[in-house]
Amino acid sequence: MTRPVLTEARAPLTRGVEVVNEHGEREAISIPAERDLTVYVDKRELVTLMTLGAHPEWLVLGYLRNQRLVEGLAAVESVTVDWEVGAAAVKTRSGIERIEERTAKRVVTTGCGQGSVFGDLMADVDGIALPEARLTQAQLYGVVNAIRLQESTYKSAGSVHGCALFRGEQMLLFVEDVGRHNAIDTIAGWMWLQQDLPPATPDEPLVFYTTGRLTSEMVIKSAQMGVAIVVSRSGITQMGYEIAERLGLCTIGRATNRHFLCYTGSERLLLQPELAVRPRPVGA
Amino acid sequence: MTRPVLTEARAPLTRGVEVVNEHGEREAISIPAERDLTVYVDKRELVTLMTLGAHPEWLVLGYLRNQRLVEGLAAVESVTVDWEVGAAAVKTRSGIERIEERTAKRVVTTGCGQGSVFGDLMADVDGIALPEARLTQAQLYGVVNAIRLQESTYKSAGSVHGCALFRGEQMLLFVEDVGRHNAIDTIAGWMWLQQDLPPATPDEPLVFYTTGRLTSEMVIKSAQMGVAIVVSRSGITQMGYEIAERLGLCTIGRATNRHFLCYTGSERLLLQPELAVRPRPVGA
Repeated sequence: MTRPVLTEARAPLTRGVEVVNEHGEREAISIPAERDLTVYVDKRELVTLMTLGAHPEWLVLGYLRNQRLVEGLAAVESVTVDWEVGAAAVKTRSGIERIEERTAKRVVTTGCGQGSVFGDLMADVDGIALPEARLTQAQLYGVVNAIRLQESTYKSAGSVHGCALFRGEQMLLFVEDVGRHNAIDTIAGWMWLQQDLPPATPDEPLVFYTTGRLTSEMVIKSAQMGVAIVVSRSGITQMGYEIAERLGLCTIGRATNRHFLCYTGSERLLLQPELAVRPRPVGA
Repeated sequence: MTRPVLTEARAPLTRGVEVVNEHGEREAISIPAERDLTVYVDKRELVTLMTLGAHPEWLVLGYLRNQRLVEGLAAVESVTVDWEVGAAAVKTRSGIERIEERTAKRVVTTGCGQGSVFGDLMADVDGIALPEARLTQAQLYGVVNAIRLQESTYKSAGSVHGCALFRGEQMLLFVEDVGRHNAIDTIAGWMWLQQDLPPATPDEPLVFYTTGRLTSEMVIKSAQMGVAIVVSRSGITQMGYEIAERLGLCTIGRATNRHFLCYTGSERLLLQPELAVRPRPVGA
């Protein structure tokens, strides 16, 4: 398959600033970078994304994919990112049909969400058939532990969301961004480029991890990427819950150390309660 | 002044769901409600907001205000919310000029952000003159403590953002929503309605508190509301930092217990380091 030509634009991910703390002392700290990237498709301005900027080309591809503006990777000829002007120029092979119309409808989604989801994602949900996928509690703990060990901008500067894609408990990609939606879109773009990605199996399924809440948007995007199991250290919103239930998607939240709550699709989670640690009784 | 006629639509703020925990036990927990509210202005569909739904009328007013779609409260004749159909019908007295054009430009903002900010907020920033405002460290601790004591959906169900408006250390309003942008818009709508709100003074200034990150959007919206001091338990993004610096807006993050970091506008914060508690040396 013809792969799009991508630049590899790089930019610093943190910025040092001086702050004053409660002791009246000046401190030098790092904050995450945040830059605007205006996406042009065939010279038509589409949207401006605020991003950390680690992988702008994957982000743009994933954005186009998750917004369902391009059918396949083959439709994209090139993505050229230039941080000097904060622009990503997308060249398609044959244009995007009815782009005005398809980018017209706005839904302001919840949470660390790309607020503007073009088109009616919900309309598609019922059409999605998720792959067979089973995750053991041991694999789940492996996922949570891999995230715990991951070096990150979050650890050095805070204020970013992390997302990761796993096969079983093996981490395939870890992405951070100031907007969680950007992190998941970046993963979607990267997945698109992996022609040689060993296929997931029912016992080594694709698992999506996010530090943020399990919102409707996260659930829908995971389903669109063919990921049937989503894990979060945070909780779930009602829309996220309802759509996951409708999809039979397995949502697991509050996942820290050995604790978790499986909200939906628990038949995909093979429980091994013997691996869980009982909290010490109070006073013990 | 003629005030708009508002419904007082009510809906449950949490929903009970059954989950499975790491011990393989079924647990009944609450998750925050999340419902879609489609806003129609003079029968024209404007946007769909995903909201907890505590104060939909204030939310809609604040949304129109923060998007700068209506100049003043007097322009709004009524806001009628009907949860049965998930609709908010806004009736204006004389319509909104060039509404198509003014709702055309999209910026997908960072974080728990209303992704779609219509129009170019940035264009306005330089026009904003913030009021004289000084906050003492004692008042700041009062703000943080009031938040700590506040009963909330977060405590019962998690997964919501809280925002609050203070005068000095006195809490005027506390609002939660699944989207932080909704919480701040709701406060903006409420502020609009308070004709008899005692004016803030330099020593009893308006202070905006958010549980979420200090993003560009939060900083800009605070400035638009005439609030010169913003406090968060979370951190700051680069855009938030740069805009706050440009505005001379005081941003204070990581505010928990006695700790905080003042990122920008520290001249508005009257430090009282003697009130800070020194962390015990390790091993002590």
